[in-house]
Amino acid sequence: MRAEIISVGTEHLLGQIVDTNAPYIAKKLASLGIDVFRKTTVGDNQKRIAEVLKESLKRVDLIIITGGLGPTEDDITKEVVSEVLRKRLELNKEIFTKIEQRLACFKKGTKRGALKQALIPHSAKILRNKIGTAPGILLEKEKKRIFILPGVPQEMRIMMDEEVIPYLSQISKKECIKSHILKLWGIGES
Amino acid sequence: MRAEIISVGTEHLLGQIVDTNAPYIAKKLASLGIDVFRKTTVGDNQKRIAEVLKESLKRVDLIIITGGLGPTEDDITKEVVSEVLRKRLELNKEIFTKIEQRLACFKKGTKRGALKQALIPHSAKILRNKIGTAPGILLEKEKKRIFILPGVPQEMRIMMDEEVIPYLSQISKKECIKSHILKLWGIGES
Repeated sequence: MRAEIISVGTEHLLGQIVDTNAPYIAKKLASLGIDVFRKTTVGDNQKRIAEVLKESLKRVDLIIITGGLGPTEDDITKEVVSEVLRKRLELNKEIFTKIEQRLACFKKGTKRGALKQALIPHSAKILRNKIGTAPGILLEKEKKRIFILPGVPQEMRIMMDEEVIPYLSQISKKECIKSHILKLWGIGES
Repeated sequence: MRAEIISVGTEHLLGQIVDTNAPYIAKKLASLGIDVFRKTTVGDNQKRIAEVLKESLKRVDLIIITGGLGPTEDDITKEVVSEVLRKRLELNKEIFTKIEQRLACFKKGTKRGALKQALIPHSAKILRNKIGTAPGILLEKEKKRIFILPGVPQEMRIMMDEEVIPYLSQISKKECIKSHILKLWGIGES
């Protein structure tokens, strides 16, 4: 199976953070024998996220996207992916109640955030977020699988380990990519 | 000016290393007011590096590539970029002598490595590598500028600071992208 990883967030393109999500995901995919062909980082920009996604869909069967699932207006990953795949967003009341409970007492803005995060693309599988409010999402269309995971590393890692890997283990061939790092001493690599 | 960053190396796609080069470069470009539109990571694969480069060339005027400048056979960035831009590689005797002096005493393989690293694309500007053997390269074609920098972070950083930034400062508008990180406390970002 061929995969690509997409990291969404303008903070990456400004150099404000180091992307540790992509190597974490890449390592996990290699352990399942899944080839990662490319990693792309794009800002919180509707047109550019859509472009990157459309290009990836032409090349590979599995796409893992992180970031842009938060409650604020610049978090648009789920919205853009749904638009590209032509899936309408529907309010999931169960998710909404969970977020509502989690946030405990509402203030203005957080309710709007909860409503936004509880919108799930039609026919998507919901991936449980044990420690945060943004549910992960698995979308399938014409034999392509697109996972959308939160950008917060702690949330992403638990979701990757407990939701994505078990799912992919079932559908990928029982192979793995073995690689070794040779640490040598001296001048020059040759 | 619009830019893209390309990180080359299969080790990235296997999750063996975290890419600290791309955020370093991104931050420096932001300080010059240069917009980074996309960051792409690709393996040491001729066809795929060429594809990524050709795509980037359609979108932006400035491309900074790191990695794949080493002396071993899997280091092919310079070769692929030269092919895409139709620039022939020429042995630069001065660079070769410098590498030769640096390596001090030759053993088999290192001479071949030195010869490989001293091949410079025709009409390229050479960027000095103060602490390593791989020279950096600046290529210009039809108003597009392509920098190729070593993947070793220490080498890349010095070259970025002392060669790339001074060059770009002269040609970019005297602007900068200002961004602030707000660190808040509480549950939920909204």
